[in-house]
This record gives sequence, structure tokens and C-alpha cells, in this order.
Amino acid sequence: MTTHKLLLLPGDGIGVETMEEVKAIVSFMNEEGLASFETEEGLVGGSAYDAHGKAISEEHMKLATESDAVLFGAVGGPKWDGVPYEVRPEAGLLRLRKDLALFANLRPAICYPALAAASSLKHEVVEGLDILIVRELTGGVYFGEPKEITDLGNGQKRGVDTQVYETYEIERIGRVAFELARTRGNKVTSMEKRNVMKSGVLWNEVMTRVGREEYSDVKLDHMLADSGGMQLVRWPKQFDVIVTDNLFGDLLSDIAAMLTGSLGMLPSASLGAPDERSGKRKAMYEPVHGSAPDIAGQGIANPIAMIASLAMCLRYSFGMVELADRLEKAISDTLNDGLRTKDIMSEGAREVGTREMGAAILAKF
Amino acid sequence: MTTHKLLLLPGDGIGVETMEEVKAIVSFMNEEGLASFETEEGLVGGSAYDAHGKAISEEHMKLATESDAVLFGAVGGPKWDGVPYEVRPEAGLLRLRKDLALFANLRPAICYPALAAASSLKHEVVEGLDILIVRELTGGVYFGEPKEITDLGNGQKRGVDTQVYETYEIERIGRVAFELARTRGNKVTSMEKRNVMKSGVLWNEVMTRVGREEYSDVKLDHMLADSGGMQLVRWPKQFDVIVTDNLFGDLLSDIAAMLTGSLGMLPSASLGAPDERSGKRKAMYEPVHGSAPDIAGQGIANPIAMIASLAMCLRYSFGMVELADRLEKAISDTLNDGLRTKDIMSEGAREVGTREMGAAILAKF
Ligand SMILES: CC(C)[C@H](C(=O)O)[C@@H](O)C(=O)O
Ligand SMILES: CC(C)[C@H](C(=O)O)[C@@H](O)C(=O)O
Repeated sequence: MTTHKLLLLPGDGIGVETMEEVKAIVSFMNEEGLASFETEEGLVGGSAYDAHGKAISEEHMKLATESDAVLFGAVGGPKWDGVPYEVRPEAGLLRLRKDLALFANLRPAICYPALAAASSLKHEVVEGLDILIVRELTGGVYFGEPKEITDLGNGQKRGVDTQVYETYEIERIGRVAFELARTRGNKVTSMEKRNVMKSGVLWNEVMTRVGREEYSDVKLDHMLADSGGMQLVRWPKQFDVIVTDNLFGDLLSDIAAMLTGSLGMLPSASLGAPDERSGKRKAMYEPVHGSAPDIAGQGIANPIAMIASLAMCLRYSFGMVELADRLEKAISDTLNDGLRTKDIMSEGAREVGTREMGAAILAKF
Repeated sequence: MTTHKLLLLPGDGIGVETMEEVKAIVSFMNEEGLASFETEEGLVGGSAYDAHGKAISEEHMKLATESDAVLFGAVGGPKWDGVPYEVRPEAGLLRLRKDLALFANLRPAICYPALAAASSLKHEVVEGLDILIVRELTGGVYFGEPKEITDLGNGQKRGVDTQVYETYEIERIGRVAFELARTRGNKVTSMEKRNVMKSGVLWNEVMTRVGREEYSDVKLDHMLADSGGMQLVRWPKQFDVIVTDNLFGDLLSDIAAMLTGSLGMLPSASLGAPDERSGKRKAMYEPVHGSAPDIAGQGIANPIAMIASLAMCLRYSFGMVELADRLEKAISDTLNDGLRTKDIMSEGAREVGTREMGAAILAKF
């Protein structure tokens, strides 16, 4: 049995306590001989800053580069609101994405039947919802230069960020979206603001060409990102795969996640390109939710998104489809048994903490 | 009685037919001696391009500059999808905003009681919703330079847009938001992505200072724009006034409008700074909805957002508070009588077309 290197980066806030439940499942797989994982643990975000003044140390970056997959919790919190921009908690996450070249961010927005009632949307609007947002993750306004604040004198400053996309960046994220659409509803909706942004014009042009030349069997639609946001709220089931840039993807995937009423449940995968020789791709898995500092350390956080991120990791990084299926089934079985953490609690269910939820899922696994 | 110069720019699609209903109301006010308007009509968007190859002609720009207020319908449609970027329909709208220096875009998101059922959100989430989005309209990624596509050779291109804000731009939009909050719930939520964008860092810094130094009586909160989008979907009533930049404002105001289920009802105002001598401010009023090419020309479009834009114009540009109140009441009375256009139709109501809805509102006015 091949041994895989897994790096755990719990980060800050509820990242820490939810990662504990993942550790228990990984140990179980090792002990039972279901898989062989060598795990290491590193610091990222505010906790890394506290330890060594950087949002991620060179040593832990090296661990990430050498691992077969990274499991990431969450970063940030009011404690670090005042730290310098370059070492703020988010800088650790952004560096991981950029240095590992994880350009494809897969964010499924699925409405768990047991949780449809938790959505602020009407039942019929979200029941059975299953869409996938494919967000470009290493380009756009997140990384473009110049990115700076200049002092103009007279008490005036100028803040600048640069949105930039090159053809190859749009092509490769487009291909990821089209490939995934073929395994699902065979439909891709590309979103940009081509009516205002030149990068949007290029985005639209490249997507159209890739669709026509390489994926003529997949239906391709285009929407302006603002209309796309509206349509997500109006009738999200019209979508199958949505492909969009880093910044629009940030907003739209969060909105899509919130629609489902299952925010605490949703995992995501960030993938690099397959290595030319080994075919292996760098990958990082993380919950869509953030570090939730308001409830951190209380043992009440929902560990499901973190555990579901492990399932995604088993599936996408190691091809352990059966184990991934089992883990996902353990999650839904536990929900069907009526166990709920506070964030998804509803009448008639049984409220449990992080540990108890994790243990219940492990017991069903 | 002072005579005011009103420029009507119906634009494209349903802009044309809904503006007809505004014309009828303006004529009525003139005839009854309620007000004295001198109206002119111009072309903008695709219709301007068809007439003279530009999204707005110099002559009609001049009319706009000389008028006391502009009423704008909507622009765009698939017919003009292939026209060059510089003369695409939206360029007309963007030029009006920029050349008239209309930096403050006020977008109320109100849930009309008669229409709460039309929302995709649960009744209790949107019932009675009344928030105001204040969007910066002449800066940011919409206008920053460079904004270009460069050919890099090898089949590669690079698309660039520039997000830029200076201190004074943030200050003045902040002041508009704080002033308006004082007339409402006394609360401002500022949204940006300071964890990723330098312009967001500056935005946050300036808002905080303006709030502390000039409006310490108004509660100021900050939210990351992605969380803000989630919170809008989760529980929109937590907000009073939201202030944000051009691009985030574009997305978030559309989402807020869609939440209400009243998209066809919502007007907006775009205001400039008061003139140093006359105290007058340039202003343009337009529906939040777009040109809806799919239903254009069929006489079924909802004219209410356009008529409500006239009401906003009476209120903000001419201080005709009583007339504005009357017109808004005429709208709600007509809705209470059970009249509905197709987009807001529900069981038990009576479906009417654009003309009939306009006439009914005029009759109640
Ligand atoms: C934490 C932050 C930098 C990050 C982002 O903006 O990408 C987060 O919002 C996300 O969506 O993963
Ligand atoms: C038509 C388009 C240029 C415009 C914008 O992006 O500002 C529209 O979406 C709006 O919100 O008024």
C-alpha cells in the first residue's frame, strides 16, 4: 500500500477544533489498514504569525510543497486585525494557493435534504440543489501588480489593485470546468463583466473558443456576473457548473453556499495542474466556511465541512473512491439520525458538539 | 413657477415602452399646473449606435449636461453584442455617469408588502425589508487605467483592468452614506475586500476616519464583501445603509434587489456633488432592472421602476416632496387594487400590460 503524505494546517478559530475530527478519521484509516497516511502538522494564519511573525513559515511552506495533499482549516480573526498587511493571516492562504499553483478551486453548493429548512430561501428553490462553482484561484485582482497604496501628499492616498488575466489562465480553468461538466449536467455558465472590464472581454472570448473547439458537446452559456448573482438568488437550479474569475468566484461561491442553508457542510478543493512526469497534481482541501472567531474554542463548531474536505481529498488526490463514498455516506447517515450542531439545529433534532458529531460520523464510517 | 429641464433617455429594450408611461405623468403635471417641466428626448445605447454609430452623441451629451435631471431607461441587448467595445451600449451609460460626475448611486432595496410572495426567499426574511445601497459610481475598476487587452504573440493575450480609489473619492461617498443613514436607521455597513485588496485597505481606513471624525453619532460596521453577500442572503434586515465600491456595489445591489422580489419596482438615483454656486447637483434616475430584450416591444414590461425613478427625481432634484409622495402612493394604491404586470403576477391578481399599469397609476395620482 502506497503511503501518502498529508499536511494538516488547522489555522485559526474553528479550524483547530474541526481538524481534530479529521485527525481521528485519518488515524482510524491507518489503524484499520484502509489506507496509509503519513501526517504532519503545520501552522498558518494568525497562529503562524503568533509563533514566528509570518502568516506561514518557510519550513511549513516546504512541508506543503512536499506533501501529496494539504488539508486546510481556516484563517483569521479580530485578534490579528491590526497586523501589517504582508503578514496578515490571509497572506498564508494566498501564498499556499499561489506557490502551489492551485489555480482551480472547486466549490460544490449542495443542499443536504435534511437541511433544506435551514436555508433562508423557499424550500422549492433550494431542495435538491447541486451546483458546482469552478473559481480561478491564482490570478485576477488577487495577485495582479501594481497592488499598492501611494501617499499623494495633502492627506490624499491612492489605493491600486490590478485585475489581470492571460489567455492560458482562462483556457486551463475553462478546461477544468468543461471536463467536470461532462461528469455532471453537461452545462457550463461562464460569468464575467465584459460590458465593463477588458479582462472580462478576454475571458468571454477564450471561454467561447475553448468551448467551441474542444467541448462542443457541452452546453456553454455566458452571463454578466451581476445578473449571475441575481439568477443564483432567483432560481439556482438553472445552473450546473459555473466558471468565473477569482474575485467574482469569491463572492458568488459564498452566496451559492449560503443559499443551500448548509454552509457548515460544504468542502472545497483547490487543484494544480498534473505534473508532466508523475501525473500527480498538487491539491489543498478546505471548508468553504471561515474561522468563525465568535464561536471558536467552544466545542460547538460544525466539523462536517472539514470532514467532507477529507472525503474530497480521498477522491480527488488519491482515487480512493470507495472510502470517499463511505465517508460521505457516514455524514448523511449521521444527519439522518437527527444529530445536528448548533448552526444547523432544527426542531426535533438532537444538538451535539464538535467532538460528538465527529465521533458519530467516525462510528458510521 | 420655475421651469425645470428634464432629459429623457429611454435607451433600448423595455426602456422605450416604460418611458412612455413617465411621459404621460410628466405631461399631466404640466397640464394641471402641478409643476413646469421642459422635456427633451435623446438617444443612448444601442439605439444611439444605430442612429449615429456612438453609444451617445456629443449633441445628446450636451443636452444631458444642460438639463436639471436625466431620466434614463435601460441599455443593451443581443442585437449589439458584436459592436466594438468603445461604442457598445453600456459605454453611453458609463459616459453619462463619468462626465456628469455622478459619483453617488442610491439603490433602495424595498420589499413591497403586496409582492413579498414573489421573492425566492422566505416571507419572514424579506417582509418589510427596507435597505439602501450607496454605491460609488465614477471610480474603481470601471474607469481605472490601464484598461486594455494586449497581444503577447504566440496566441496569448493579456486583459487588464485597474481598480483605483483615492482618499477624496472614498470620503465623499462615505459622507453621502452617513448623511442618508441619519435620515433612516442611523447605521452604515461598509463593504470591501481589505484582506486581499489594497484599495480595500484604503477604503476601510478612510471610512473609519470619516465615521469617527464627522459622524460619531452613526453606527459604523465593516464587512468583507463576500461575507456581506452571504449576510444579505441570510438575514438582509440586519442592514440599514450599505456603502461600497463600484464593482461590489454592482453585484450586491443587484442581489439585494432580487431578494425583495420587487426587481421590476426598484428605482435608483445617481447624484453628483452640489455646485459651489447654485447648490444644484447633477442627477440621473434609472430603474435597477435592465433592458430585458426577451420581453421588449411586447407591451408587457413593468413600468413601475421607471415611474418610481420619476418620483425619486421629483424628491431629490426638485424638492417636490408632496408630488413624490403622491406618486409613490399612487403606485402602492394601484398594487393594492390587485393590478400586476406579468413579472409580479400572482394568484388572484389581475394581469395588465405596461400601458394599463401606467394609466392606472396616473389615474390614482
Ligand atoms: C480568506 C480570504 C483571503 C479568501 C479569499 O478571498 O479568497 C476567502 O474568502 C475564500 O473565499 O477562500
Ligand atoms: C449596464 C452596466 C454597465 C451597469 C453597471 O455595470 O454598472 C449595470 O449593471 C448597472 O448596475 O447599472
